[in-house]
Amino acid sequence: MVVKVYGPAYASPKRVLVCLIEKEIEFETVPVDIFKGEHKDPEFLKLQPFGVLPLIQDGDYTLSESRAIIRYYAEKYKSQGTDLLGKTIEERGLVEQWLEVEAQNYHGPIFNLVTQILFAPISGFPSDQKLIQESEEKLGKVLNIYEERLSKSKYLAGDFVSLADLSHLPFTHYLVNQMGKDYMIKDRKHVSAWWDDISSRPSWKKVLQLYKYPI
Amino acid sequence: MVVKVYGPAYASPKRVLVCLIEKEIEFETVPVDIFKGEHKDPEFLKLQPFGVLPLIQDGDYTLSESRAIIRYYAEKYKSQGTDLLGKTIEERGLVEQWLEVEAQNYHGPIFNLVTQILFAPISGFPSDQKLIQESEEKLGKVLNIYEERLSKSKYLAGDFVSLADLSHLPFTHYLVNQMGKDYMIKDRKHVSAWWDDISSRPSWKKVLQLYKYPI
Repeated sequence: MVVKVYGPAYASPKRVLVCLIEKEIEFETVPVDIFKGEHKDPEFLKLQPFGVLPLIQDGDYTLSESRAIIRYYAEKYKSQGTDLLGKTIEERGLVEQWLEVEAQNYHGPIFNLVTQILFAPISGFPSDQKLIQESEEKLGKVLNIYEERLSKSKYLAGDFVSLADLSHLPFTHYLVNQMGKDYMIKDRKHVSAWWDDISSRPSWKKVLQLYKYPI
Repeated sequence: MVVKVYGPAYASPKRVLVCLIEKEIEFETVPVDIFKGEHKDPEFLKLQPFGVLPLIQDGDYTLSESRAIIRYYAEKYKSQGTDLLGKTIEERGLVEQWLEVEAQNYHGPIFNLVTQILFAPISGFPSDQKLIQESEEKLGKVLNIYEERLSKSKYLAGDFVSLADLSHLPFTHYLVNQMGKDYMIKDRKHVSAWWDDISSRPSWKKVLQLYKYPI
């Protein structure tokens, strides 16, 4: 059964795509145009009542929330492709910890920066300069803790790449490229080496090559 | 080895405590007084660089982020106590989905309500009325989706209790009790029945009896 991934152009679905490629899982994509409001269509809301991407369908199994989807496939195909959960239950605990840090500490400010700097202008809304400044400060503090952590281990959860690292790719790509805020990464030696490592993985390069960002 | 749980008085560590009791895991608690700033002490920051609760120590294994900790113990002791991850990998996928919904959709607005209504006054800050109103609206919309979901299954991930349900307990307790906003739960038939069910579990009653909230 081929996995269907909805909305491959957007950042959160790319979190799923890069992991599916790492796990060597066959998939196809279904375009969803957020700018046309297709994620709020009644048919889509039946599958995903919050009206957010991503969503996958795998036979008659439907799952949403990118970090839930990547956990599901990383576990279901544990021994296929790259192992993204660590070797022991203790390593998996650390993967879960850093995946939560990404979701709870890193994602909030970087999402605000992406929304205010890239999406507000094309949506005709004024950018909230105070929110931009606060978000950059918050993200900087999180990155300082990453710098310390990555001075001790090659990846966030230890010396093995995991879901926790890959989960940072889609929004950090915006930061480093479209938003011109690459100094936030480059000015921190260990974060910079980590970013170079994860963003040059063939899986991520393939995602970028196949599924252009909307902006 | 007895698990040490830091900061049992507060809401997020209670997420860990209720799950440890469900899993019949022995633990002890270490008080941390946030009002005295003990979570920002250098010794604590060495263990938890973000300066947030909870934190556990299990021998020389240290883990933070409540939802990572509960996943770790639910998996490590899968067959001991209540199974909180579902029976199949597909059920676990749904547990992960709804645990993410709790973290990404439910927690934000309820955290704002708790902070603005309960903690701002005692910390000497003015409450942000606009944020309170927006957060209540957001939480109401999330609860409408829960109402629909819980009309079809007894618990969020299916007809079995899981981490996804229990994760709602500590902050919803504030909503229903200290904050007097129980109507948000009671006015929704299926959400109300679900809340009555999970909040009357012996594990949760034990948490409330042993570890008083700070407010």
